[in-house]
Amino acid sequence: MTNPPGQFSPTFRDELAELMRWRRDVRRFLTAPVPADLVTRCLSAFASALSVGLSEPWRLLRVESPEARQACHANFRGSNAKALAGQSGEKAQLYSQLKLSGMAEAPLHLAVFCDDGTSKGSGLGAGTMPETRAYSVVGAITLFWLALRAEGLGLGWVSILDPDRLARDLAVPDSWRFIGYLCIGWPEEENCVPELERSGWETRAATLHVDTR
Amino acid sequence: MTNPPGQFSPTFRDELAELMRWRRDVRRFLTAPVPADLVTRCLSAFASALSVGLSEPWRLLRVESPEARQACHANFRGSNAKALAGQSGEKAQLYSQLKLSGMAEAPLHLAVFCDDGTSKGSGLGAGTMPETRAYSVVGAITLFWLALRAEGLGLGWVSILDPDRLARDLAVPDSWRFIGYLCIGWPEEENCVPELERSGWETRAATLHVDTR
Repeated sequence: MTNPPGQFSPTFRDELAELMRWRRDVRRFLTAPVPADLVTRCLSAFASALSVGLSEPWRLLRVESPEARQACHANFRGSNAKALAGQSGEKAQLYSQLKLSGMAEAPLHLAVFCDDGTSKGSGLGAGTMPETRAYSVVGAITLFWLALRAEGLGLGWVSILDPDRLARDLAVPDSWRFIGYLCIGWPEEENCVPELERSGWETRAATLHVDTR
Repeated sequence: MTNPPGQFSPTFRDELAELMRWRRDVRRFLTAPVPADLVTRCLSAFASALSVGLSEPWRLLRVESPEARQACHANFRGSNAKALAGQSGEKAQLYSQLKLSGMAEAPLHLAVFCDDGTSKGSGLGAGTMPETRAYSVVGAITLFWLALRAEGLGLGWVSILDPDRLARDLAVPDSWRFIGYLCIGWPEEENCVPELERSGWETRAATLHVDTR
């Protein structure tokens, strides 16, 4: 570290922008295992994450047993079939061809929850907007995602799931709200263009519009 | 950029971890203005952000007029007084001494919303969990926050606000859900320990517990 603490160089900023471009949702994984110490190092990003009132409401479950994985995968397949039924015409045809989860191949699966009932933080900052606890978990996942990508690892966030069924299948406490199912592993291919853009599903906006009040 | 595209060095990873430690919620700002081109550069992080179905549901408002700022600040003061009334004993005394917003000093204010009614992305990934649109906005804010911090800028996320009143005061479309009010500027002091930890409100967990299913 050649810079003073908390100060960063233009070179670092360029690399950070590059990292953000490469932080993509990955659905095509190699089945090769991910070294445990690598994952532990990346998980340490949670300790730096934003959390409302310092409530640290994230709860992580490693989904490992064949039974638990099968339950989650079946949940995805059911929810995805329903989602497909909600599309029509060309969009339905395109949807059916999209690969929307790497659950069959990714070596590491994490189900992430938010403990809405935590007393940590004594409710500070979450009075008018209790959803900020869930937002804290999302911010932490985002940091974790960047840390993984900086190690060459990919993450795919699966949200096409019935959250109540998933919480039941994984037998989590009542106060835990499901946030996201994360598939983690080595990407099958390196690409920094979102898969939904490559497939023609949607394009990214060319500019960010900021209005003024 | 000396590394192959999408690959990052151990030095970069160390600096990234350092940046994450320095990404703190800032409530004490200098009033000095922030150069517009710096903000624009940091806002480009939104283009790399995760968004469900590529829906890019973020909507940003720069809160600039004295009227708009006063309305938001009054909203915070009212919500904060109610939150204080909900604390008791020593916690109430401590709460009353906390500085929970930099709204009076920060030169740049951004109100961030999620357009729950957007047709962009055709609903992909948000069928069973519509809240993933809001989560996309939170992920984008997290990237923006890191980009700001890499430039030495601080961000303070204010959530002690009545979201309905804020949406009304800023006259936003009905489908916009309020996510967070961001105060941005140069930090008054450099510190990588959360203010709530320094004040004795709450401590961070020493370890991250990951259970297995």
